[in-house]
Parts: sequence; structure tokens; C-alpha cells
Amino acid sequence: MRTYLECYPCFLRQALEASRIAGLDPDQAHQVMRQVLELLKGLDPSQTPPLLGDEIHRLVRRLSSNPDPYRQIKQASTAQALGLYPRLKALLDEAEEPLDTALRLSIAGNIIDLAIGREYDLWETVQLVLQQPFAIDDSAELREALERVDQVLYLADNAGETVFDRLLIEELDVEVLYAVKGGPTLNDATREDALQAGLDQVAPIVSTGSDAPGTILKRCSEAFRQRFDRAELVIAKGQANYETLSEQGPRLFFLLQTKCPVIAQDVGVPLGSIVLKQG
Amino acid sequence: MRTYLECYPCFLRQALEASRIAGLDPDQAHQVMRQVLELLKGLDPSQTPPLLGDEIHRLVRRLSSNPDPYRQIKQASTAQALGLYPRLKALLDEAEEPLDTALRLSIAGNIIDLAIGREYDLWETVQLVLQQPFAIDDSAELREALERVDQVLYLADNAGETVFDRLLIEELDVEVLYAVKGGPTLNDATREDALQAGLDQVAPIVSTGSDAPGTILKRCSEAFRQRFDRAELVIAKGQANYETLSEQGPRLFFLLQTKCPVIAQDVGVPLGSIVLKQG
Repeated sequence: MRTYLECYPCFLRQALEASRIAGLDPDQAHQVMRQVLELLKGLDPSQTPPLLGDEIHRLVRRLSSNPDPYRQIKQASTAQALGLYPRLKALLDEAEEPLDTALRLSIAGNIIDLAIGREYDLWETVQLVLQQPFAIDDSAELREALERVDQVLYLADNAGETVFDRLLIEELDVEVLYAVKGGPTLNDATREDALQAGLDQVAPIVSTGSDAPGTILKRCSEAFRQRFDRAELVIAKGQANYETLSEQGPRLFFLLQTKCPVIAQDVGVPLGSIVLKQG
Repeated sequence: MRTYLECYPCFLRQALEASRIAGLDPDQAHQVMRQVLELLKGLDPSQTPPLLGDEIHRLVRRLSSNPDPYRQIKQASTAQALGLYPRLKALLDEAEEPLDTALRLSIAGNIIDLAIGREYDLWETVQLVLQQPFAIDDSAELREALERVDQVLYLADNAGETVFDRLLIEELDVEVLYAVKGGPTLNDATREDALQAGLDQVAPIVSTGSDAPGTILKRCSEAFRQRFDRAELVIAKGQANYETLSEQGPRLFFLLQTKCPVIAQDVGVPLGSIVLKQG
């Protein structure tokens, strides 16, 4: 997905939020804003938005001398989601269509996303998403693909959401590789975050080799790119993975909530939709 | 009021909205955004936000070759408010405290503000504001001042809101000069808009001599500045007049709704408050 003019104000908003979370003083925050203005001036609109997001978070990490400003937030998100795990597991045990419910839960977990908004009630979202009709529902195609392949490459999104991914992986009858970021960016899940959520109990955890938001293939490791190229089926969670991989073809299935109006428009659904879309 | 870092994304959002309303093509809108990025880089944070707002809307008017892109919106807002006029007048006729009700109505009219958000239901807002407690209520001081002076300088805000101003002016037992913008900017009321709302039936209409949002004194005419300096009592409507005149002392009374989180914080009240504040 390209970068739209509507993304410009949002980049500045995210830069300011990240500066505050990293504890930058007003002069440093001003410095971040000025540098983001410069980056925006030179922006190539054909590039995907997370490429600039990466620059912004890198800048904030450098100026704050804090390699992981979202660490506490991520730990709290994971702990909150783990607190729901028994109730979510019970929901699945009672479900008539466990895979459908698990897919919905995995999308419900996508509400955990600090890049967009900080107000959410996780359990309320779960209830809502279990009832909400899909705006795009390619789950039949996904089921069919799951029958066909030996392995799924599962691209994680945020810490906390990982717990919901774990529930889905527990319902899948196929080997899953769970791919997390190679280093901290925003509240994206790293190996450490995935371990806190217990993902190692259900899947080997692999690294994209990149600490950029989404999956920017040219910033991933050679090892991950080979894995990605070989994958017969990729489940990609969240908006940033959609933004960075939307052109990668039908091997990919995107599971997300459209929390950003620009992404919603690009996907072709209303804001606030739940989406299971084949690439 | 100074410009905060939180204003930066909002300026870009406003620039994009103005570009769309003025019908700029994508290349022109991109040009506007790039120029606003340049203006933001050089911004002196001690200046008031409407100074940059002025530059943005000037730029959009120039690029679109449209001296009044908000004309239709303003006319529709005024027509909508005029449609409510008989019901609002009836409310005042039945009011136990007509001046209090008229002050509240004038603040209710301040919801008409395209710089912030486009979704509003005017009548619902009226009902709400009539019940809502003031976050700051200097109406006792205002009443006292109204007893003391011979004339009020009333600084208009947006087209449509003018109709609510008219209702307040009809309740005042003192001569009022109604000051409108010297030329179109955003949806701010000009003489033409004030005439559509029937303000000439209740007060002489004077011009600030400036087509900037708010009241940026150094951009006003010499004649208006003299009028402003001589005024014993000034009623200043809306956020932009607060932003540009908040340091002008106790002759000023600000009537506004805090629709912007930064202004709410500067005033020291929650977002969405109704405020009657002495300078």
C-alpha cells in the first residue's frame, strides 16, 4: 500500500506520541518533529507507510537512548491478554465452529495497537468481534489452503495480540512458524514478547531479522526472505503487515481490524471492519 | 496562546481538508502539504496557531484561484441556523433567565466549526449546552461589566454561529458593534455572511480589516485596532479568538466550546467544555 496525504498528519501524531512514551524532553520532541517534517518533505508517496514509521521510531529510540521505549506497555498488554486466556480458551471449547471462533479471536486481538489509539476494552472487543460480520471473508479460501499445505508462516503483529495468535495456532492442524520482529519497534512483538505470551509452547519462533514495523522485506534478513519466498501459506496479522505486503499475492491471508481510515479505504471496507482477506 | 507540538499534525490535517474543500487536484494538494511542512519547520512556537492557519488558507485560496472556498458551506450553515431561529427565539421567550439562556445559545452556536470536525447536530447541541454546567463561568463578571459600559465590541467567529450571536445581542441592553472578518478565511463570518444571518437588524457590522482566522491584531486595520483599544468590553467568540487574544486582559470575555484538546488544556478545562471566561 502506498502512502497517502492523509498519512502525513498521522506520522506527526505518532512521532509525538512515541516521543512522549520514550520520555523525551520538549526540546528533543521538537527535534523529532522537525526531523519528521524533513522526512515527509522528501517522502516518495509510492513507498509503504511503515517505511517512514520505521525512521520515526528509530529516531525516537536513538534520541531517548532507550532501545525499547514500549517495553512496559508491551509487557502490560501481554499480561492483560494472558489474564483473558482461560476465558478465551473456554469460549473455544464451547464453540460450534472452533476454527471460525479462533480466527475471530485472533482478529479481536488486533485491537491492541498503540499506533492508532490507546482506548480499548479488550473483553468488550472480543464479544463484539465474535458477533460482527466480516467485511471481507476469505475464510473458505483460507480453510482450503490450510488443508493443502504442510506449514504456515505466521507474521505476528503486536505484543498482547500474540496471546490471541496462540489460541488460533492451537486450533490449526498444521505446523506453524511464528515470525516476530528482530528487535523492538513500537509495540510490535519480539521474541521476548512472544515468549511471555507462551508462543514457544505452540510454534517455533523465528525472527524477521528486521526491527521495522510491518514486514518490509528489503529490511528483513536473507534467512527470513528465503523462508518467506518458500512459504506456501502466510497468515499476516494487523494493519502494518497489510500495508507492507498487500501486493504479495494469494499465498497471503491478512487478518486485521481496519482502525485507520486510509487503510480501510485501501482495503475497500468501512472503518472499524473485521477483515480476513486473501492477497 | 502559543503553538504546541500537538498543533503540528492538526495543521496538516486542516491543510488537507481545506485542499479538498477547495477542489485542489492531488498534485496541488501535495504541493500544499509540502509548503505547510516547510512552514512548520520554520515555525516560532511562541506565535499563536491562527497565524499559521492564515498562511495555510491563503495558500489554498491562491492555488485554487478561489477567493472563498467555504462559501457554500457558510451559506448552508447560516441557512441551517436561521431555520432554528424561531425555535431558539421561543426558548428565550420562555426562559426564566433570558440572558443566561442567550449566553448559552451563543456558545452552542460555536459548535459550527469546520476547522475541528464536520459532524454535528445543531439542535442536539443546543439542548445539551442548555443543560451543561459551565467549566468556567465568569458570567457574574460579564453581567457587571455589561451594566457599566455603553458599548460592546463583539468579535464574531463562524458563519451560522452568527445567528446565535444575533439572539444574544437581542437580549443585551447595550449598544453592540459586531466585528466580522475583512475577507473570507475558512468558514469565518464576513459582512456578507453576517447580513445573511440578519445581524444588521441588531447591530452595526464593522470589519476587522483582516482575512486571518481569529483576531490577529497586527493584521487588522488601523481603524479596527483603534476601536479594539478603545473598547471597554469585548465579547470574543470561539477558539481562534481565544487563541489570538487570550493575553489581552480583563476587558475581554471569551465564549467558546473547547473542541480542541490543546486549547482545552490551555484554558484549563476538559475537552468538550462550555466556557465563559474573563481574560
